[in-house]
Amino acid sequence: MLHAVIMAGGSGTRFWPVSRRDRPKQFLSLVDGRSLLRITFERIQPLVPPERIWVVTAGSTAELTRRELPELPADHVLAEPVGRDTAACAGFAAMAVLRDDPEAVCAVLPADHVIRDASRFRRAVEAGSSHVAREGGLLTFGVRPTRPETGFGYLRIGAEHGDLGEWTVHRLAEFVEKPDLDTARRYLAEGGYLWNSGMFVWSAAELLAEIRLQLPRLAEGLQRIAGEWGTARAAAVVDEVYPTLPRISVDYGVMEGAQLCWTIPVAFPWSDVGAWPALGELLDADAEGNATRGRVVALDCRDTVIVGDGTLVAASGVHDLVVVATPTAVLVVPAAEAQRVKDVVAAIEDRGWDDAL
Amino acid sequence: MLHAVIMAGGSGTRFWPVSRRDRPKQFLSLVDGRSLLRITFERIQPLVPPERIWVVTAGSTAELTRRELPELPADHVLAEPVGRDTAACAGFAAMAVLRDDPEAVCAVLPADHVIRDASRFRRAVEAGSSHVAREGGLLTFGVRPTRPETGFGYLRIGAEHGDLGEWTVHRLAEFVEKPDLDTARRYLAEGGYLWNSGMFVWSAAELLAEIRLQLPRLAEGLQRIAGEWGTARAAAVVDEVYPTLPRISVDYGVMEGAQLCWTIPVAFPWSDVGAWPALGELLDADAEGNATRGRVVALDCRDTVIVGDGTLVAASGVHDLVVVATPTAVLVVPAAEAQRVKDVVAAIEDRGWDDAL
Repeated sequence: MLHAVIMAGGSGTRFWPVSRRDRPKQFLSLVDGRSLLRITFERIQPLVPPERIWVVTAGSTAELTRRELPELPADHVLAEPVGRDTAACAGFAAMAVLRDDPEAVCAVLPADHVIRDASRFRRAVEAGSSHVAREGGLLTFGVRPTRPETGFGYLRIGAEHGDLGEWTVHRLAEFVEKPDLDTARRYLAEGGYLWNSGMFVWSAAELLAEIRLQLPRLAEGLQRIAGEWGTARAAAVVDEVYPTLPRISVDYGVMEGAQLCWTIPVAFPWSDVGAWPALGELLDADAEGNATRGRVVALDCRDTVIVGDGTLVAASGVHDLVVVATPTAVLVVPAAEAQRVKDVVAAIEDRGWDDAL
Repeated sequence: MLHAVIMAGGSGTRFWPVSRRDRPKQFLSLVDGRSLLRITFERIQPLVPPERIWVVTAGSTAELTRRELPELPADHVLAEPVGRDTAACAGFAAMAVLRDDPEAVCAVLPADHVIRDASRFRRAVEAGSSHVAREGGLLTFGVRPTRPETGFGYLRIGAEHGDLGEWTVHRLAEFVEKPDLDTARRYLAEGGYLWNSGMFVWSAAELLAEIRLQLPRLAEGLQRIAGEWGTARAAAVVDEVYPTLPRISVDYGVMEGAQLCWTIPVAFPWSDVGAWPALGELLDADAEGNATRGRVVALDCRDTVIVGDGTLVAASGVHDLVVVATPTAVLVVPAAEAQRVKDVVAAIEDRGWDDAL
């Protein structure tokens, strides 16, 4: 059966000050009043019912996850005591799902992506899971690039393998790290490259088999957890084992060395909402390129993202700026430097103003 | 005797969002934890005790004034039901003071100025009031310009009249409207021009005599108020008369046509704190020209004024900007366009978000 694993472990300082330590990005109503996690959960549901949806999240946000998704069986919230990147996350989920369903195929979906055409997205997941159920292998979705983006990793497409109707499935040639601008332009011009969406499909058993081959220390840790799963000792073992797991992505830690990898190129509007300017693209911008949310006055502004979350924001005569305000903290940063939120958060930490984080 | 009249009638949208309708600029702790009104009151006190200090303010802020200055006799708060510029304000105060003290000399002081050398300021007021008591006439203090400022009106200095020790007193040649930059540069180069500080000294009786000569409608209104002053009808008459008074400044409405006007050039550090950038000059700026107040993180910023009033503000990589934040409203505007706060306030009013004003 097809299961969905939602990865909701991000700590989300990139959306400070709206995201906070105790309320990371995936719990925020950044777009339409629902949280990104809730949107992800509802998006997959016509294809996968709550009984087959699993969410991996941080221990500190497990309760928030249960409140956000009350339809989810309580034991489908898998709490990681510490983050250990996506190989551990995907392996942990595969271990839990497999105990429920030895034939499980998992669609692994980040909780913080925005996808505009939900039914096209579900058709792609359906096609991918049928393909994997039939032929095995690990599958990743690649988004056809529409601009020379330097903020994403890329996939290089391999030989075409088959026609899945609306989609074609290819062998995956390789993962490519985030390129510089010239390289990104070349990828766009050449074709043959896709944005690495971070969305995967595989059978739980096959993923665990690949982990055993390639990441024995992770396999061993997951084995220890599986041994106590469902007992009173489960949480204690997870707490003990998790910090010892290797910190590596599933892309580079598992798929790159796997025997059989696929990719399906997709073209639905997709964004990983990595930072405030990306949110600006999702909100409907006005003719001057201003994207606003909340009570905002923008006079003679251009290309600004302005968010008033529980407070009014008035800007006049500014451009290419991100302004995000909450009642307790305000961020002002040029749009081109929005990734510097990390430095801002570090500086606030240095000053001991942790209550604002 | 020397009395002090503090003009505290401003409505103060220029300091929105820290200033609000019910809390104009003069009530804000913009500089050192005390309000500008309180600072003005304490600054003059070594020279003039509270029993001879009067404050003219708006009806809506009379109670706030009494709370801010509990030492002040309650009937020394003179409430204007509507603002009618400084001629009406000065005349109203002169009328009230004169009933207490027919020989009163008044030092008339705006509540929203910042003056760094308070004892030098008091010596100037003392010299001015002695001079006026001796020779009559209306006196205005002029600040020696230190830059080609276009935001102030100017005074042209007339013939030197006498040496007052630390000071010299001149005839006042004329009031000059706010100049353009070229003209302001010429004033600075030529000498002979002073910034119009808006601080005055005159005998209450002489000011009222000049008002009778030059502004008969104002004189008549003040006469009606004086007729009921101290009775149960006083407030009702003020409410009735005030809206009918002419709206003109004491500079152009009274002094320009007066028989005898003086000016004393002074050189203490003075600012009328007209808008956020002026406040920036008063706060101690760092080497990059950033002036901050409150919990502020400024990374790689230049020439910014950042105020966090009850909220944290973090800015990174911005320059020549004013950012002012309170828990309920935030302003972001280029420093050079800080006067556009007025448009911002109007836009907020248009949208019906009056609770933020």
